[in-house]
Amino acid sequence: MPDEATLPAPTELPPEGPPTGRAISLGEVTAIAEEVRELIAAGREQVALERVRRLHPADMGLIIAGLPGTSREALVRLMAPETVAWMLRHMNPVEAGRLGTRLGVRALSFTLGQLHPQQALATLWRLPRLPARMLAQVLTEPLPDAEAELLAHAPDTAGSLMAAVSPTVPEDARVEDAIESVSALGDQRLKFTHVFVLGEGDEPVGEVAMVDLALAEAGTPVASIATPVVASVSLDTPSHECARLRRHYNLTQLPVVEAGRLIGAIPAESLLSATVEQDTRQMLQVASVAGESADAPLLTSVRTRLPWLTVNLATTFLAAAVIALFESTLMKVVVLAAFLPVVAGQGGIGGTQTLTLIVRAIALGELVGVTARRLLVREALLGILHGLFLGLLVAAIAYLWQQNAGLALVLGLAMLGNMIIAGSFGAAVPLFLRRVGVDPAVASAVVVTTATDVFGFLLFLGIATAAIELIT
Amino acid sequence: MPDEATLPAPTELPPEGPPTGRAISLGEVTAIAEEVRELIAAGREQVALERVRRLHPADMGLIIAGLPGTSREALVRLMAPETVAWMLRHMNPVEAGRLGTRLGVRALSFTLGQLHPQQALATLWRLPRLPARMLAQVLTEPLPDAEAELLAHAPDTAGSLMAAVSPTVPEDARVEDAIESVSALGDQRLKFTHVFVLGEGDEPVGEVAMVDLALAEAGTPVASIATPVVASVSLDTPSHECARLRRHYNLTQLPVVEAGRLIGAIPAESLLSATVEQDTRQMLQVASVAGESADAPLLTSVRTRLPWLTVNLATTFLAAAVIALFESTLMKVVVLAAFLPVVAGQGGIGGTQTLTLIVRAIALGELVGVTARRLLVREALLGILHGLFLGLLVAAIAYLWQQNAGLALVLGLAMLGNMIIAGSFGAAVPLFLRRVGVDPAVASAVVVTTATDVFGFLLFLGIATAAIELIT
Repeated sequence: MPDEATLPAPTELPPEGPPTGRAISLGEVTAIAEEVRELIAAGREQVALERVRRLHPADMGLIIAGLPGTSREALVRLMAPETVAWMLRHMNPVEAGRLGTRLGVRALSFTLGQLHPQQALATLWRLPRLPARMLAQVLTEPLPDAEAELLAHAPDTAGSLMAAVSPTVPEDARVEDAIESVSALGDQRLKFTHVFVLGEGDEPVGEVAMVDLALAEAGTPVASIATPVVASVSLDTPSHECARLRRHYNLTQLPVVEAGRLIGAIPAESLLSATVEQDTRQMLQVASVAGESADAPLLTSVRTRLPWLTVNLATTFLAAAVIALFESTLMKVVVLAAFLPVVAGQGGIGGTQTLTLIVRAIALGELVGVTARRLLVREALLGILHGLFLGLLVAAIAYLWQQNAGLALVLGLAMLGNMIIAGSFGAAVPLFLRRVGVDPAVASAVVVTTATDVFGFLLFLGIATAAIELIT
Repeated sequence: MPDEATLPAPTELPPEGPPTGRAISLGEVTAIAEEVRELIAAGREQVALERVRRLHPADMGLIIAGLPGTSREALVRLMAPETVAWMLRHMNPVEAGRLGTRLGVRALSFTLGQLHPQQALATLWRLPRLPARMLAQVLTEPLPDAEAELLAHAPDTAGSLMAAVSPTVPEDARVEDAIESVSALGDQRLKFTHVFVLGEGDEPVGEVAMVDLALAEAGTPVASIATPVVASVSLDTPSHECARLRRHYNLTQLPVVEAGRLIGAIPAESLLSATVEQDTRQMLQVASVAGESADAPLLTSVRTRLPWLTVNLATTFLAAAVIALFESTLMKVVVLAAFLPVVAGQGGIGGTQTLTLIVRAIALGELVGVTARRLLVREALLGILHGLFLGLLVAAIAYLWQQNAGLALVLGLAMLGNMIIAGSFGAAVPLFLRRVGVDPAVASAVVVTTATDVFGFLLFLGIATAAIELIT
């Protein structure tokens, strides 16, 4: 960046440039964070700032993001805008996005407004799309057209992950030309591992690894050291598909192609953070808390969780209705009520084990060529094995406890039946949801546990009703 | 690899070298897999092989891994050993490991035994440690000492992720020297993004990006373009800590240091697969199926799941005992039994939402500086908000259904109480487990759902007993 020398140097922190702080353990970061929180609470912000000064920006950012709102503001107010921007640029994108969100649009716009436009722009790209779009308006210079366009892309698409510039050379270029195109990227050069080789219509026909540029003699034609491009995406390719391509084909960056022409590339770092975000979302979706974080505003959490809790309430009332059907049986043998959670609960756990395994295998693309029937048979078989063992065990315990052989038999049979149902539904539901185009991570859990509840109660109370003479 | 020209060329598949097949969608892979399965079932293995011939090795491997055992064997028997090895080397490490496991030690040792030692060795490194150790004995040439040592490292440590060679130069070297050290790596050069700069005692003092080697003029001292090394690990650093360092500090490779000396490096690809494996394990651990895959042998699955199912059985009997305490109350108002799953079930869902969020935040290191008290208060508050809403809703539904105002009141109060318990335990249990050094992903779910079951029944039946005149 040519104009960098004209910028005012940050006053109290490491100058611009790569981070010099060494990595420390999570325990050490936690201890320093605690110390900083106490210093600020005691009104000693300057000492607190001194404490984080020499840390790696990743640790600095993590500590600042974890502070309570007012302490965070107090500390950030003491920092030079250059330092805040430097920190955001050297954190990983996921953590930078989280810190950006916590700092808020007002503090960020104050920071960016005081920076050199180049620096402001580079910082802007680390932030989540929504605040970035709002912040773009406060930059002292308007965004270049190409970059403004990038901000307009839908979140969770290749467009939103794409970098504004990428290294390219024409097919008949030589190694020197490729090196020049990399050099023109300035600080962005470290984001890429390959230079794209473009055909006559600007279509990507190959790529050359940076390391091979270093190894090649001057004058070598790039075509002679290029390898074919394995995958390309378009602007609206979903980011989970980009993550899949990266993982499955072992790629580091992805060309973005529209109408046959290369229009940009997704750098390694953005591809990786898309993968992390996808994995997080998936894990949280199984528990219906996707889109949340442990320190989100309270109302965000209510909005994410309450709808699912309400849907679930409906399903538990279904289970309640099943139990109510058997009121007369329960009236005769009230101790049956005590065993209701045993049958349903075991089914719920077994079903969740199966569905989690299948959801994850689907996400990693591991089920290709594995027929649904094979998986179903496998999980149903496991259900039988588990059901036989648990059924015998539960019958034995119930007999010892209640001295009622009929009850023990009913309980054991219901357990066997419900474990088979748990295995079958645990496998069938996510496979079916995938087939009809619904993300299995989203809805599988509620469907499966409803099934194990409803069938668990039906089996247990149904068999008990049929065999009522054995029990009473 | 100098001797490559003397190898017999694979007969029926693309020659050695980078993959030429283009990426295809998961839908297309699935369709081809289906076709291949049917072709083999019809005894037309040669046509099936022809069908996968021109695919990218990642897709070829995925399809072969998904085939039923006998079909897989039939197809692999038709392939040249060079092709099998080439496929394993160009798949991502996680998928290559899965395919290696499915092929089995016998088929793999047959394949490796027929390969050039160099090729066999490179393939060996893609396989999971255990079969690799067994296979090392069948190689036509014994492993070099350094490589044999690598195989001995404990799984899930930096030692097991480390590559045998890495690019290094002394501190006073020039760019040409660094380029030479990269060139000496042969095919392995593409695994690294940086060359390590070593001080006098072989300690890593800096690193130079490959791209900067390409940009630098000949004669430039490497020290002038090096940046400090942010993190290093030792042989026994757990792989989840390596994954954390990569993510948090935005690194691509990690130097392994023993007694101050650099002894190797973890390349980007291995670091990434450690991350994917860690994320998978964590998600599966919450459901107690870690270490399993959707197509593992049946007995492996029984061994993973049954112990947890049995532990869980003990906890549901605890819940059953609580219900049994209130037998006389249930005898008076048997319809109470129908509402048992409503209170406990909602608490279980709410508690799981909270604990999943906290477990994931702990894993991503997001909770640094966030005090346990703040999280607890937050989740308890959410519990109150959800409890108020769900309590009112459930009371209204119960009233409409059973026309019993007393029952509705009892149910609403129990729901409010159990949602507060769900939020508090959902936050407290993983935080407590982390503090005492137990992985919160492993044990949180069973503790939290036990709490919401037991307290749910206690609250509901306890309040009902106290207010029995209102209900009857």
